[in-house]
Amino acid sequence: MSGLDAIAGIGADRRRGGYSRHLFDDAEQQLREWFVEQAEKRGLSVETDVNTNIWAWWGPPGPGAVVTGSHLDSVPGGGAFDGPLGVVSALEAVDLLRERGFRPRTPLAVVVFAEEEGGRFGVPCLGSRLMTGTINADHARNLRDPDGRTLAEALRAFGADPARIGRDDTALDRIDTVVELHVEQGKGLVDWGHPVAVADSILGHGRWRFRFHGQGNHAGATPIDDRNDPMVPAAQLVLAARRTAAGTPDGRATVGRLVTNPGGTNVIASAVDVHLDARAPRGARDMVQELTGQAREFAAQEGCRVEVVEESFGDTVHFDPALRDRLRGVLDDVPALPTGAGHDAGILAAEKPTAMLFVRNPTGISHAPEEHATAGDCEEGSHALARVLADLAG
Amino acid sequence: MSGLDAIAGIGADRRRGGYSRHLFDDAEQQLREWFVEQAEKRGLSVETDVNTNIWAWWGPPGPGAVVTGSHLDSVPGGGAFDGPLGVVSALEAVDLLRERGFRPRTPLAVVVFAEEEGGRFGVPCLGSRLMTGTINADHARNLRDPDGRTLAEALRAFGADPARIGRDDTALDRIDTVVELHVEQGKGLVDWGHPVAVADSILGHGRWRFRFHGQGNHAGATPIDDRNDPMVPAAQLVLAARRTAAGTPDGRATVGRLVTNPGGTNVIASAVDVHLDARAPRGARDMVQELTGQAREFAAQEGCRVEVVEESFGDTVHFDPALRDRLRGVLDDVPALPTGAGHDAGILAAEKPTAMLFVRNPTGISHAPEEHATAGDCEEGSHALARVLADLAG
Repeated sequence: MSGLDAIAGIGADRRRGGYSRHLFDDAEQQLREWFVEQAEKRGLSVETDVNTNIWAWWGPPGPGAVVTGSHLDSVPGGGAFDGPLGVVSALEAVDLLRERGFRPRTPLAVVVFAEEEGGRFGVPCLGSRLMTGTINADHARNLRDPDGRTLAEALRAFGADPARIGRDDTALDRIDTVVELHVEQGKGLVDWGHPVAVADSILGHGRWRFRFHGQGNHAGATPIDDRNDPMVPAAQLVLAARRTAAGTPDGRATVGRLVTNPGGTNVIASAVDVHLDARAPRGARDMVQELTGQAREFAAQEGCRVEVVEESFGDTVHFDPALRDRLRGVLDDVPALPTGAGHDAGILAAEKPTAMLFVRNPTGISHAPEEHATAGDCEEGSHALARVLADLAG
Repeated sequence: MSGLDAIAGIGADRRRGGYSRHLFDDAEQQLREWFVEQAEKRGLSVETDVNTNIWAWWGPPGPGAVVTGSHLDSVPGGGAFDGPLGVVSALEAVDLLRERGFRPRTPLAVVVFAEEEGGRFGVPCLGSRLMTGTINADHARNLRDPDGRTLAEALRAFGADPARIGRDDTALDRIDTVVELHVEQGKGLVDWGHPVAVADSILGHGRWRFRFHGQGNHAGATPIDDRNDPMVPAAQLVLAARRTAAGTPDGRATVGRLVTNPGGTNVIASAVDVHLDARAPRGARDMVQELTGQAREFAAQEGCRVEVVEESFGDTVHFDPALRDRLRGVLDDVPALPTGAGHDAGILAAEKPTAMLFVRNPTGISHAPEEHATAGDCEEGSHALARVLADLAG
C-alpha cells in the first residue's frame, strides 16, 4: 500500500467532497501520527520544531542538510495529492536510496510544514513563514480561526508553547538545500508530455480581507431605498476583481470564500467578508490597491463602509537558477515550469538554495477532489526525487 | 422582571451579536422550558402538538377558542423582540385579565409556533405551515439543516414522531380567532406617533435557492480564461436581484445568505448557493422567474450551470377586514398598517379570522440586534392585547 493509500481515509470531507485537513484538527493530528510512525519505522529520528513543523532525520541532525518534504494539511474539500504527495514521495525516495545502498554524506531530512494552505488561520505557509520570520510572531499568535480561536490558544491546546513560535535559527542553520516535490497545479506537463518537471518561478500572491459593514435589517420590511446592504458592494467587488485580473497580464483574482453575517435568508446582512486571493507576476498589490479604491466607492454608494486588511503577501519567487539547472541536468533535461500556486519552498527560497519538482496532473485541476496524478507518474516523481537527493547529498 | 428580561440570557450570540435561537437547539429548548414553566405557574394547561407547537390553555381546550401568541425562535443574530414579545405579551395579557377578574366565555390559548424564522430548515412559519398543511409533510420531513440533518432526524432527537407531522385538524378545529402581537418591523408607528397598530396586510413573499455549479480549482494556478467560477454568476445575480426589486412597485429582493463551497480563500469555488428572499404585493414569483432567466445566462457565460429551487412561497395576505375593524374599534381607532414581514398569523389567515397587533419600533430595524421597543410601548401592547382578548373571549 502506497503512502497516499494509507492516508486515504483520514479527513475525508463528506459534505464538500475531497479532504479537509486543517491545523491541529483530528485529521491533521492523525496525519502527524502517521508520519511519525512512518519515519520511525525507517529509523529516522523525529522532532517537532517550535513552530510545529515536523522533521525526520536520516543521520544526525546538523548543518549542511539536504531537506525535502511538503505539507499534510489541505484546503477545505481539497484533493489527495496537494501536500501529501511531497511527503510520501520523500519517504519513498529514502526507501529507494536505501535499497540501492546509498549512504548520504550530509544529513538528510524529511520535513512536514504546518498549515501550508492557511485553511484554519488564513495565512498560507504559516509554518515556513514562522520559521523564517516572514510573519511577525506576535501578529501570528493573534490570528483567529473561523470560530474565533487564536493561534496561541490552538498551539496551547495542541501542547506547543505559543511564546516560542517565530524565527527559528536553530532549524534554519542546519539547512543547506531544499527540494519540495508537488503535484502540478496546471497542465504544463500535459502539454510537454512529460511526467516530471522542475519549478522555475512562483507567481507573486497575497490574500486580502474586505469587510463591508452595513445595517442589518429585515429582508421583507425594509424598502430598497432604505437599505445599507453590504452584500451589494461585496458582489460588485467580486465582479471588479474578475475584470481587473482579466486586464492584468497573467493576473488572477479569486473570491472563493465570502461570508455573510449574520447569514439569515430573511435578514439583510450587517457585514460581509470578501476574501480576495490576488496574484500577478508584477503588481498584485497594485491590482488590490485599485480594487480597494473601487470597493470604497461601491460601499459609499450603498451607505456602507469597508475595511481592507492584507493578510499575507509574497513577491514573485524565481528559484535558484544554478540549483534548478543542476536538477534539470540530473533529470535528463526535464522542462522548467512556472506556477501560480504558493509553496513553502517559495518562502524558503529567500533564505536557502531551493528547488521544486512537479508531477504531472492530467486535468491540471487542484484544490478540488478531481486533483490527480497517476500511480505511474507518482512513481516517476519518487524516482526523480531520489536521483536529485543522491546528487545533492551524495 | 418582565418576560423578555427573564429570557435575555438565553441564546445570546457572541459572534454575530443579538440572539440565535433555532429549532431544537439548546437555546430554543430552554425557551420552551421557560414557557411551560410560565404557563403552569399561571395554572394554564400545556400541551405540545404533533408539529411541536406549544399550547397553553386557559379553560378546557376546546372549540371556539381565541388564540394568541407568536414564536420564540430567532433569525441568526436576531433581535430580542421578534417573536418573544408576542409570547410575553400574551402571558401578560392573561395576567391583566385575571387581575381584573375577567372570566373568558370561550377557551383562550397562548400558542408558541415552532421555527417561524426558518432559521434551521429554511422554511419560514414551519410550525403553522405544517399545522395547516400548507407544506407537504413528506417534503418537510426531508428538509435539511446546514449540517445535513433532516427535519425527521431532528424531530426524533427532540422526542417527537416525524410520522405524525402535518395537517392537524384536531388543533385547527378548536380555533375560532387568532390574534398575534408583534414588534413592528418598520417605522409606520413612528410616523403615526402611536404605540400600537392593527395589521392590514402581509406582502407576498418566498424563498428561493439558486445553486451555481462550476469547476473547483486552484485560485493561483488557473488562468482567468480557463475558469468556470460559480462566484461570478452568483455575484451577478445579487446585483440583478437588487435591480429587479428596485424596478418592481414595493418589491424587495435580498441575498443575506450566500454560501461558497468549499469556501477556501485560495480555492475557486465548485458551487455557490445564493439564498434569495423576494417579496412584492403582486408578482414576487414573476420577479424570480425573470431572475431565473438571467441567472441561467450569467451561468452559461461562465461555463457554469444553475439549479433553482422554490423553498417557500405565500401570496399577499389581507387580514380579515371585519376582525381588523373590530380591533380598531376596541383600541380607539389605532392605525391599520401593512407589513413586509411574514408571520404565522399570515398562514392561519387562510383558515381562520386572524388579526395582528404591532408595537412601535423606534428605528424600524428588525432581524438585527438593534431591534427595539420601549418598555412603555411594550406595556401598551400588552394592555391593548388584553382589551382585544376581553372583547373576543368575553
